Amino acid sequence: MSIEASKSSDNVRAVIWDSNQLILLDQRLLPGKVEYIKCKDTASSAAAIKDMVVRGAPAIGITAAYAVVLAARAAYANSPDNWRETIQADLKLLANSRPTAINLKWAIDRMQKFFAQIDSDPEPVLLREAKSIHAEDIHANQQMGKSGAELIGPVNAILTHCNTGSLATGGYGTALGVIRSAWQAGNLKQVYADETRPWLQGSRLTAWELQQDGIPVSLIVDSAANFLMSQGAVQWVIVGADRIVANGDVANKIGTYNLAVVARHHGVKMMVVAPSSTFDLSITEGSGIPVEDRGETEIVNYGGVRTAPENVSTWNPVFDITPANLIDVIVTEKGIIERPDTAKIRQIFG
Amino acid sequence: MSIEASKSSDNVRAVIWDSNQLILLDQRLLPGKVEYIKCKDTASSAAAIKDMVVRGAPAIGITAAYAVVLAARAAYANSPDNWRETIQADLKLLANSRPTAINLKWAIDRMQKFFAQIDSDPEPVLLREAKSIHAEDIHANQQMGKSGAELIGPVNAILTHCNTGSLATGGYGTALGVIRSAWQAGNLKQVYADETRPWLQGSRLTAWELQQDGIPVSLIVDSAANFLMSQGAVQWVIVGADRIVANGDVANKIGTYNLAVVARHHGVKMMVVAPSSTFDLSITEGSGIPVEDRGETEIVNYGGVRTAPENVSTWNPVFDITPANLIDVIVTEKGIIERPDTAKIRQIFG
Repeated sequence: MSIEASKSSDNVRAVIWDSNQLILLDQRLLPGKVEYIKCKDTASSAAAIKDMVVRGAPAIGITAAYAVVLAARAAYANSPDNWRETIQADLKLLANSRPTAINLKWAIDRMQKFFAQIDSDPEPVLLREAKSIHAEDIHANQQMGKSGAELIGPVNAILTHCNTGSLATGGYGTALGVIRSAWQAGNLKQVYADETRPWLQGSRLTAWELQQDGIPVSLIVDSAANFLMSQGAVQWVIVGADRIVANGDVANKIGTYNLAVVARHHGVKMMVVAPSSTFDLSITEGSGIPVEDRGETEIVNYGGVRTAPENVSTWNPVFDITPANLIDVIVTEKGIIERPDTAKIRQIFG
Repeated sequence: MSIEASKSSDNVRAVIWDSNQLILLDQRLLPGKVEYIKCKDTASSAAAIKDMVVRGAPAIGITAAYAVVLAARAAYANSPDNWRETIQADLKLLANSRPTAINLKWAIDRMQKFFAQIDSDPEPVLLREAKSIHAEDIHANQQMGKSGAELIGPVNAILTHCNTGSLATGGYGTALGVIRSAWQAGNLKQVYADETRPWLQGSRLTAWELQQDGIPVSLIVDSAANFLMSQGAVQWVIVGADRIVANGDVANKIGTYNLAVVARHHGVKMMVVAPSSTFDLSITEGSGIPVEDRGETEIVNYGGVRTAPENVSTWNPVFDITPANLIDVIVTEKGIIERPDTAKIRQIFG
């Protein structure tokens, strides 16, 4: 499977199960190099999530699902009679690999539900379920892409943040799925992509995905989004999510909340696109979401070049929490939620 | 003159006139390397401004003043009788080196006013004036630092953007001058510095200057400022300016307008600190200010490492225009302007 060979990035797969192996596209090397990493066990899968070989909430969830298969394979080989107990350490390691995206926990929980009904080798049953999670994610993205694009209708330009495309999901993408659909329908002239500091997902991944599909994209520094909006250049901001809680507050890549504030200031609409695996109704409001701080490395270095003085202090939360009242619409595969609040979310997911 | 030897970055000089030579600290290499460049003529001075060896509106103005001395020296040596005519090409080259900071034009105009009263070698008279411009800038900064800090009183933290310190001015700094004064008065616990994409002035210059002075600084990505403010961590945003027009609209580093919008949203105060050389009353409102687009290089590369796919389009305005109504106060050496508008600015500068 070669990225270069694919005609559209829609066909790119960040997470692949092939010949009984979990294979991840190493996103740390994009767009310069296209290389894949094999994860032999849970430890290497958890490390790949932690180190951002794979990133994007839905892609992390799918990776975790396949990693549970690897964990079960190892646990069953070592102790066929009590693999359900011995697997727990691996599941914990996996669950703790990154804190903010709820899809990780969601996928592990869903896989675990099958443990009770398995009476011999768990791998075939669990692999079937992991493949279902993967396929359902792609299907949900296509559905959300269609309904999100219909909602928007014809526009001049959409601004997006971080990467929410095939690389961040099972395939097709969430926010980028809506953008793809709008483009395919002839309803979109161009995309602006925030470069998305500190990890530059916008420059390295989104610009590349959009180029692959021939969708015109202009890269901007994150802080230019407001100036761009003030010129009337953009009609919608469309982003993904790492966790959406009961009242509609959204955890997503740092800078999303900033975009929501300035979009509202300029009368630009704000859309969040996320499958139901991103919802966490156990938390009532955004302040309850754990926000990962990834430390100084991503801020003070780039590509081995030091960009700040030694011993400087940093504050590097890589997610922020956008209050529901700044979001115009959340698009899910189960329906569209305009002006989200607790009641509307409960109506769909309760 | 060595940066390492100075006890405080307040003593650092970005622009130096020594042994009849213009010497510039090469800010492109900071914080990793401290190297100086000699400018022998107007062409090399203009190139240094264009290539950002020297940057910061007041420092650009001072550099231009000294460059006029070099231009006059060359013109007088070549044609003592009509140096006032032959110098014009050099002045034009200089004036066109960067478009947005008005201090450049201001300094050249001020130097030119002396041309008529010179009757022999222009260098001594013009050098005296260039040195005055330099000294006045430092004095204005110290004055603004004092009055800005008094206005603020005791606060927990200030957020700043870009670099407005000794490196951006004749010395001491504009916004960073206010921060220095507040710190020296014991009225400030810590500074947050935006890294300031695309050129990373915050990471590379501001963090370094504040470290030199022992002022606690945390570096954040630009898009994290809003999340920081939402947590009540910051009481003031303080920035410099590249041009302030008749109605109080402010051109400054890209991202300033964004900060002004989100500061207002969170009830954080917004201060602009700029000497009178930054005011351009010939333009009635911000939309008349030319905004420099520096092309793709600064966005798609860092330190020789490619950060975006080949052939990607970019939009890279390196300044934006903050409307006066989002600014709580402009601090100048001639007085403080709260809730700036045309009448209040005319009262001070008219």
